[in-house]
Parts: sequence; C-alpha cells; structure tokens
Amino acid sequence: MSNSIRTTLQAWDATTEGARVHEIASALFPFCRSITGDGLRNSLRALQKYVAVSLHEVPTGTQVFDWTIPKEWNIRDAYIKDSKGERVVDFQKSNLHVVNYSVPVNQIMRLKELKDRVFTLPSFPDLVPYRTSYYQETWGFCMSHKEWEKLRDQDYEVCIDSTLQPGHLTFAEFRIQGATDEEVIISAHSCHPSLGNDNISGMAVAARLAEHLATLPLRYSYRFLWVPATIGTIAWLALNESVLPKIKHGLVLSSVGDPGRFTYKRTRHGSAEIDRAVEYVLRVSGADFEMRDFTPYGCDERQYCSPGINRTVGCFTRTPNEEYPENHTSADNLHFITALALGESVEKLLAIVEVLENNQRYLTLNPKCEPQLGRRGLYAQMGGKGGRLFNEAVVWLLNYCDGNHSLLDIAERSKVEFGKLVEAAQVLVANGLLRKMEHDV
Amino acid sequence: MSNSIRTTLQAWDATTEGARVHEIASALFPFCRSITGDGLRNSLRALQKYVAVSLHEVPTGTQVFDWTIPKEWNIRDAYIKDSKGERVVDFQKSNLHVVNYSVPVNQIMRLKELKDRVFTLPSFPDLVPYRTSYYQETWGFCMSHKEWEKLRDQDYEVCIDSTLQPGHLTFAEFRIQGATDEEVIISAHSCHPSLGNDNISGMAVAARLAEHLATLPLRYSYRFLWVPATIGTIAWLALNESVLPKIKHGLVLSSVGDPGRFTYKRTRHGSAEIDRAVEYVLRVSGADFEMRDFTPYGCDERQYCSPGINRTVGCFTRTPNEEYPENHTSADNLHFITALALGESVEKLLAIVEVLENNQRYLTLNPKCEPQLGRRGLYAQMGGKGGRLFNEAVVWLLNYCDGNHSLLDIAERSKVEFGKLVEAAQVLVANGLLRKMEHDV
Amino acid sequence: MSNSIRTTLQAWDATTEGARVHEIASALFPFCRSITGDGLRNSLRALQKYVAVSLHEVPTGTQVFDWTIPKEWNIRDAYIKDSKGERVVDFQKSNLHVVNYSVPVNQIMRLKELKDRVFTLPSFPDLVPYRTSYYQETWGFCMSHKEWEKLRDQDYEVCIDSTLQPGHLTFAEFRIQGATDEEVIISAHSCHPSLGNDNISGMAVAARLAEHLATLPLRYSYRFLWVPATIGTIAWLALNESVLPKIKHGLVLSSVGDPGRFTYKRTRHGSAEIDRAVEYVLRVSGADFEMRDFTPYGCDERQYCSPGINRTVGCFTRTPNEEYPENHTSADNLHFITALALGESVEKLLAIVEVLENNQRYLTLNPKCEPQLGRRGLYAQMGGKGGRLFNEAVVWLLNYCDGNHSLLDIAERSKVEFGKLVEAAQVLVANGLLRKMEHDV
Repeated sequence: MSNSIRTTLQAWDATTEGARVHEIASALFPFCRSITGDGLRNSLRALQKYVAVSLHEVPTGTQVFDWTIPKEWNIRDAYIKDSKGERVVDFQKSNLHVVNYSVPVNQIMRLKELKDRVFTLPSFPDLVPYRTSYYQETWGFCMSHKEWEKLRDQDYEVCIDSTLQPGHLTFAEFRIQGATDEEVIISAHSCHPSLGNDNISGMAVAARLAEHLATLPLRYSYRFLWVPATIGTIAWLALNESVLPKIKHGLVLSSVGDPGRFTYKRTRHGSAEIDRAVEYVLRVSGADFEMRDFTPYGCDERQYCSPGINRTVGCFTRTPNEEYPENHTSADNLHFITALALGESVEKLLAIVEVLENNQRYLTLNPKCEPQLGRRGLYAQMGGKGGRLFNEAVVWLLNYCDGNHSLLDIAERSKVEFGKLVEAAQVLVANGLLRKMEHDV
Repeated sequence: MSNSIRTTLQAWDATTEGARVHEIASALFPFCRSITGDGLRNSLRALQKYVAVSLHEVPTGTQVFDWTIPKEWNIRDAYIKDSKGERVVDFQKSNLHVVNYSVPVNQIMRLKELKDRVFTLPSFPDLVPYRTSYYQETWGFCMSHKEWEKLRDQDYEVCIDSTLQPGHLTFAEFRIQGATDEEVIISAHSCHPSLGNDNISGMAVAARLAEHLATLPLRYSYRFLWVPATIGTIAWLALNESVLPKIKHGLVLSSVGDPGRFTYKRTRHGSAEIDRAVEYVLRVSGADFEMRDFTPYGCDERQYCSPGINRTVGCFTRTPNEEYPENHTSADNLHFITALALGESVEKLLAIVEVLENNQRYLTLNPKCEPQLGRRGLYAQMGGKGGRLFNEAVVWLLNYCDGNHSLLDIAERSKVEFGKLVEAAQVLVANGLLRKMEHDV
Repeated sequence: MSNSIRTTLQAWDATTEGARVHEIASALFPFCRSITGDGLRNSLRALQKYVAVSLHEVPTGTQVFDWTIPKEWNIRDAYIKDSKGERVVDFQKSNLHVVNYSVPVNQIMRLKELKDRVFTLPSFPDLVPYRTSYYQETWGFCMSHKEWEKLRDQDYEVCIDSTLQPGHLTFAEFRIQGATDEEVIISAHSCHPSLGNDNISGMAVAARLAEHLATLPLRYSYRFLWVPATIGTIAWLALNESVLPKIKHGLVLSSVGDPGRFTYKRTRHGSAEIDRAVEYVLRVSGADFEMRDFTPYGCDERQYCSPGINRTVGCFTRTPNEEYPENHTSADNLHFITALALGESVEKLLAIVEVLENNQRYLTLNPKCEPQLGRRGLYAQMGGKGGRLFNEAVVWLLNYCDGNHSLLDIAERSKVEFGKLVEAAQVLVANGLLRKMEHDV
C-alpha cells in the first residue's frame, strides 16, 4: 500500500507535474470569485474537469454558528467611462477593478466625488489593489495609482452591473474513501477573484493532490474542501459537526505557488502527528523551511483550531499570505506562481501523506534480547551500503517496537529514513518478528 | 478595578514618588534596631505616621517552632573613653559602634585587652562594620580600622549601658482586606540598626506600597509584615499557622534602594504565579534584571519556603544583600539608597500587583469558530495603531480563553501586552463573548 | 559504610592500582578465547587468581530465548606452511591468525586458491585483522597484508587443528551479597582472543573492581559477569529471568583501557539513576567525557536493554569499540591499553558505586522553618573554608530533604559535592534533624 505513494514519488517528473498544476491554475484564474455567486460556482465547476468534486449550496440566511449566510452577489459588468465614452476603468479587463461585493450603481460623478470610491496603492503605483466589503453594503473601484493620476476632472459615468440578492453560498467537496473512516482534511479557500498565489495556488495544488490520491489505495479517507474563506469554512463546520470526531489530521493550503521557502504553521495542539509529519518531511527534503507556532491569525486554520472545534489542522504555505508585497494586488498573477513551485508543493504534500499513511505502531514478537537474524536469512540482505541501512532499520525496529513508538517516533529518534523503516517493518512482519498494532489495511 | 492600579501607574511621577519613599527611609534610619527592644519598637511605631500598622509583642521564652524568643535587648549608651575622658568610640554618633545585643560592661582596659573586643575592616579602613551576637552572650565594639590604628596603649574606660532581660519581640503588621480572603504577603526585615539598603529600603518601600494599595479596590487581601529577620519571621509563622493556607503569593523585600539592576529569586516552587508575574513585569519594563532559582540561603524566603511551610514567596531585590561591598558597613547609609531607586522599586511592585490582581481565566462563550465581531461593532474599535493592538488582544482571547489559560499565559504566549488583554477581556465580557471563570470581584 | 569507598578513593595510588589491573590484563591476554571452548574456559579460570568467580557451563543445543547454544569450538594448532615446510602463518605466534570458529582443514593449496581463505587489511598493511564465523561453518586465516604480499605461488600446506563438537558455553559469575538483594550488574564480554582493549580491558577492570568491592560493606548486592558477547549474555538472561526484577542498575564495560576520554552510553530509559550517577561522577571529576543516548547498536547493553528485558544498564567505555582504528586488529594489544587508563577506569567506577550506594532520600524532621543550628553546636563545625562547605550542605539538606529529593538530586541542584552531602546527612541524622527514608543499611 505504502509503496504506491513511494512509487509515485520515485517516478516524480517535476517538469510534467508542475506544468499540470499550472494548467489547473490557469483554468481557474479568470473567474470573478467571491464568497458567493456564479464566479465562485463556475470556478468550482471548472475543477470537475480534474476531480469529481460535488458542489454544495447553502441558502442565504442560514445560521452557521455565530454567522448568517449573506445574500448572493453576482456581477456582469462594471466600468468608469470618461466624457468621451472611453472606459478608463474596465471590469472586463480585470475583475480586481471592482470592490468585491459592490452593490449596483449607475450615475454621473465628478472626479472629486469619485475620489472616495476609488482605491489605489500610491506606494505601488503600477498595481491594482484587491478590496472587499462583504458585510457592509457599499461599492467602489480599484485601479493603479498611475492610471488614477491621469484622470482629469470631468463627468464620469460610473456603472456597476451587480446584484445582491437571496441565493446561496457554494462550496465544493471531494472525498476519497480509504480503508478506515478516519479522515484527513485538505482545505483551500476559493473566494478571491483573479489572484494567483492567494487562492488559485491552493485550489490547484489541492486538486492535483486529489487526482493523485484518488488512484492509490489509502488507509485514511481524504476530504478535500474548496470553500470561501471564513464564512465558507464556518458553514462547512456548522453543517458537518458529526464529521469532526473523524478528522484526524488536516492542512489548510494557501500561497503554495510562489518560489519562496516552505512555511508551516503548527496546529493549536503544537506537536500533533500532522505537525511532526510536516516537519519531518521538510527536514529530510533538505529544502529551506520554517516552522511556526499556531497563532489565531491567518487562514481558515483559525476556524479549524477554534477552541470548540480544535482539530489538528495546520497551515501549509510557501511564503505566508501577508508576507509578500504582491499579496492582494494585481501582481499576484499567473506569472507570480511558477509551475516548479506548484509541483514541488504537490510533491511535499504527497510525502507528508506517505508519512501519515504509514505512521503506525508495530509490536515486537520477540521482546527478550535480539532475535537471531542470521538463521532467518535476514543478514543476507545486509551486504553493501544499502544492506547496512536496512540493518540499521531492523535493529531500531526490533528494539523500539515496544508498543509505545510509532514509525515516525523511531525515524526521529534513530535518524533512519522513514521509508527505510516502513520497508524493514514489512520484512519483519513477513518474518514473524513484528506485528502491526492497529488494524492493518 | 484593575484600572485603579493602571491609573496610578499612568500618573506616576518618579521624582515625587522617590522623594516620598526616601523621606520614610530617613525617618526610620536613626533607630538602633535589633531583633528585640525599643529601637525596633519605636521604629515600627514611626511607620504609623504613614500606614496604620499594628504592633505585636511576643514574650521572651515563647516557643516558636524550633526556636525560643530571646531576652529583650535595650541600650542607652556605649563608648570607649581614653585616659583624657575623650570618647574615641561613641554609640551616640553611630549605633553600628556596638556589637548588636552586647551585654552590659563597664571597666578599664588596656589597648591589648581591647583588641579582642573591637572589630574593624582592614580592607575598608574608613568603614565601621556591623556585627551581632544574638545567641551567645558577649559584648564588643565596631570601629573603622583607621580610627583603631590611631589608638595608643593607655587605660580606656569601656562602657556599654545595655540591658538583656525578659521582655518581648516586636513586629508590625498591616492588612488590607480585599474582595477575597486570599492573601499576598509582603515581608520586610526590620532588625538592622542604621543600615540603609539592608533593611531600611525594604521597610520604606513596603510602607509606601501599602499606602498606595490601601486606597485601591483589590481582589486579594494584602498583609504587610515588618519583622526581625529569621526569629521574627519564624515567630510570625508559628503564631499564624492558620493563615498559611490563605497565602497565595508573597514577596520578601530587601535591598530595594540601591541603583543596581533588579534581581528576583524565585520561590521554591520555581514557576509559581508570583515568579511568572515578576519576570513578566521586569521583562516588559525593558529594565535590566536577573532571575535566579531558589536557594535556601538569603533572607526570610528561607523560612517561607522551608519544606513544611512552603509558601510561594520569592525575594525581590535590586543588588542582593551580600553582593555589594557596602553591605553590613557604615557605607550602607542614606546616601547609598537613592530616591529614584526606591521609587522605581515601588513602581515595579505596583505593576506586579496589577498582574496578580488581574491574572484570571476567562471562558469563551462562543467556542465554535470565530464570532462575527463586525455585527457587534467590535471592528469599529480597530482603526489605527491602537485598534490593531486591540484587535490582536481580542483574537488571542477568543481562541485561548478555553478555560486552561490565564491572562498571563496568554500574554506570555501572544506577546500582546498584559494590560491590553485586561482591557479587551472587559470589552468582550461586556459583549457577552467571554465570562470570567473565577468569582468576579 | 559510605566512608569505606571514600577511604579507598582518598588513599588511591594511581600507579600501583594501574599496575595491578595491567597485571590482570596481561595474565588474560594470551588465551585464544571464543564464544565457547577451552580458551574461554581457561581464561575465566585465570580470573580465579584475583576473584573467586564461579564458572557455569551451558550445554550445546540449549535453547536460550530465540537462540541455541552452538557447538563448542577448540583449537590446538593452525598454520600455513610453504613448500620448504616454513610456517608463513602460525597460530602459535598469534591466535588472531585463525578465523575464530574455523572448522578443521588439512590440505595442499596453491596461492590462488588460498586467496579466498585469507583476510588482510590492505589499508593497514602491518596489522593482522580479527575475524569470526560463529554461525556459518567455514574456515580461514588472517595475516598482515605485508606478509601476504610476500607469498609466491607454490604449494602450501594448510592446517587448522580444531574441533567443533557438542560441548558447552562457559561464563563466569561473581556475586557480592550486600545488605539488600537489589543488584548492580557489571558485565564484561570475554569472547575475543588476544585483543587488549576490546575485551581484556573490561574483563580486568571488572575483576579489579570486584576485588575492591568484596572488601567493603555494601548496600546493594553486586553481580559481575564475564560472558561471551551476545550469545553468552542472552544465555545468562534466559537462565536468570527470576533475577531480573532485582537488577536495579548495571554497566557493561568495554574498551576501558585506552587513554581516550570516557564515553558513556545511557540506558534505554535515558535518565535512570545509573545514567545520572555516571554523568555526575564524570562531570565533577573534571575529566573530558561524552554522554550519548542509547542506540540499539554496540555491546551487550543491546540485550540488557531489549524491550522485554529493559534493565537500566548503560555502557561505560573510554573510546567506544568501533571508533579507534586499532579495534579488531593485532594493534589492540597490551601496549595499546595503559596501566594509567585501566586504573582510572577502576577509580571512576568506584566513584560511581559510591554515588549509587549513598544516593538515598532523607526526610527532615523539622520541616517548619529552619531549625536552630546554634544550640545544637552545629555552627561550631562551620569555621573556615571547610566549615562553609559543610554549612552549605546542611542548609540544602534541611530544605530539600522533603521526601522528594535524593542526595543526587540535591547535589545536582545545589552544586554542593555529593560526598559533602553524605557527610552532612550523617551528622544531621545523628542530631535528630533528618532520618533516612529507605531501609537503613
């Protein structure tokens, strides 16, 4: 079973894999996503080309814990036209130009009046900022400071052709049934419009990871969620309280497409199995990475790790959202996320899943002194360098498989590679020297 | 409630405050204190000008644990006169000149005989040492080595006009009743004669702290003790065993008037709430300070932290007693302790009390996912820099008020200032999002 | 009681002591030891000149846990003769020349055929390697690469006059009955032929330590084992399962004769009393040393610390076996182990035993505040530098003898020398201020 992920990773072709994930990202990029509406809905439908996700609709007004599902927002067009009828700001060119969740407007305004409705980034004059106003009904535009400064005082036709009406909040789910009902949650927020790293990357990497896992025999069940941040995650949690006890591990994916180093924010628990698995994989990968303790800031781990939910869900990113200047601007585009970085993220996640899948406890069946390996032919496998490593794995397993140590415990303690321990454990089981302690898949 | 200490600290005027404490110190300085007698008694009475302390008298011969209250010592005069009748050593000039607890003597002696009765500090020839002999009946004089060397062989009249008779040991107590009977003990030894840092400073700082706390609404009750070192503390503990279970925190004050950095010796427990509160206050103050683990040496924390008493009482000093060369000499005078240093000590102690008073646990009433702060208008308070800090405090509280974390736990974990957490907790209680877990004062 | 070891150590004469241990080593060196046979048997008998060890014989075929006692191996002679009848390899010169456990052979071979039967160390051309083949019946020779290269193609007479027949495995035991039946195990492997550090040193140091302890009154019982590595230890453990619960501490001795720094490999427990005692002794000795965590590699601690045995037995060495180039070659001879190094090892082991013997818990009989030492005359012992140290010991004991701290705990916490604490505890017991908590020997 474990060999399947191993095989996938051993056959890993970074170029092909990266290209595949970037293709998914490119397909998702154009939609004008929000926390509700057709932009979101169609974006989630687009995922179905890759993974058989199911869409779920939560009606406006539904109470989800302390929150209420808001009205659904849809937008067809938006612009600011100058007196010559020229679009000086055009939603058709970039959906960032409209403050997300803007109520409809259609009026003539002078430049001075417009000023309060237009957001720019004077310190990054070429970039268009990303702005939202979900819970306060208002409207506005975003544009580059450079373009703003070109505008002269005149009559402008200001139009936002949007609707804000009872409807639904949509989220997508894809569940792989494993040998047990214990679940691993992979969650990606999906409510930002055309922004690459800060939402598309997580959506695409989750989809690709799901594609891989769907083909493999698995011990855990895996549940992938593409949800609007905060309200969507809260909605999912409120509607799935009965699932919570089954969630054994989880990861929130965000900003996994930039070329920065990996950063992992631990669960609220702090040293949960998922925390240790991620740290182990990143450490042995030799890549640069950073581990951080939980804080109640950030992405949807805030909800998964709220005290009354308290699942062991960490947050897996490359550069964390608020720490790159492109974040929440038009510079967070398809060029900012690279095929290589996206592919590497999928690879690391597969390696993490490999650890979770195989991190079991075994029990030595010969606890008193060492067993005689020679008469079982187990020394035969020990010639050469590979043999030496196999032997190390065997010796550590025979001593530490006392019921108290998982394979990850032993890998951390012994510095013997996790994969070598998995392999050696299988040989020792076959030789009657160990038995798996938990239900064997 | 907490605002009261906050207000006091915010309105802190270091100069005025320091001058006030130095005034108390100056009033106490002249008395010839000892572990018993009128010098001690009058000194404690002098405190009544500032705080309504009550004096307690323990009769000679009273058994206090392994000890017995000794005879009471009183002294009126003492001198060594040369053959011209000139006082070459004069108790009236400094009470350090007599070995404390000297029995009476009146005789003529040659220089050679005198030698065994006179103590000097050859390595500090200008200073008069401080010496005692409480439990071995003897007598002696102390003088500067420079003066000693001037003496020529002749007949000297040696007189100590003292008495050592059944009487009492005196100590002073001042108790502020708070909302609960749980007590904080502040203990200052008061048995040294005219020595500034090594006893007057602690006595004066305790008095000034008591003056402040007496005007404020408090959660804990506060018991201030001015007691002779060792025997006095042992006497108080023996006579107040029923109080011990109520003592939740405590500090021994000593050498709090020199300009050295703060030094805190932890309780025997090692990470008691008082230990953490002191460390927190000193750390965020930005001042230089040192934390030390408990040792069974030092001041009266030896008794409070003996294994059968075992209260969480730490020792709060600037430079610890035995670590400045002026200690136990005439150089430890009113010039050695500065108004600024004394005032700072009171300020730090008030800040420590502020933490103790407010360090409670709260429970989130909305544990499942984050509550929607927006509809409660709690985002309204979040504009600008102050708002950001308020928001941080709110977010940390909502996640960590799970019943397991006190405000100090959260302050240490989050790096959000303790005072900000107190403020935010009050707002969240008012908004029905938190409740205080312990009895609310 | 404790004074006896103290006295021995205070009277320590490194030269005499070292010479004595080296004498034992020299007596043991010549025997052609193996895991069975007369070489081993006679070697263990030779120990009887120093310590009254008893020899135990385990018959071939006996099942010991997962292992079976092999046939007994004996050898009288072995050589390779050239066509002139000259012995070019001669067992009489060094027993390393024959692969240990070689089956008999007697034939004529050409150089080319001989090649597969002769082991050399090309990178150390002057040294003869040490080789064994216990569980695979074969034969071979070992020689220096330099000598090997001198051989020309011709007919060689190859003879190994050995037998491999049903017989016994021999081990030696020496047990000192202490005041209690709780045991300390000292175990030295004894199956290598003429190799100095990697087996003779441990055998000789164990013998000398036994000689010393046999003359002293002891709290623990001490069991010394000279056993063939792996199979011998496994045999002893299998035959003595009922003893296991009594084993409180243990040390495997190996490579204790080279002049390298001390290295201690902790027990599987990791911070057992023996681990802390060894670390304490090495640290206060001022010698260079290294502490390592347990690994399931190495010497017979692998068996003692297998999960089903799990005794707190550490491994005490100077340079660990595989870390000096002389290991398992003819260079590991009587010159490689020095009298000084051997003597130092005995000294450190005695100091470790001293800690184990005296590491008890005491209970203060005056837990409330300090007792008045003055009226018991205990201050009288406190003048001068020695007095100061005695006083420190007293003060630490009176506070920390609360039932939770052993003398080693207090020594580690206070930095007061363990021996001073033992001394002071005895005085305090005599004065009715402490009582020993465990059964007093």
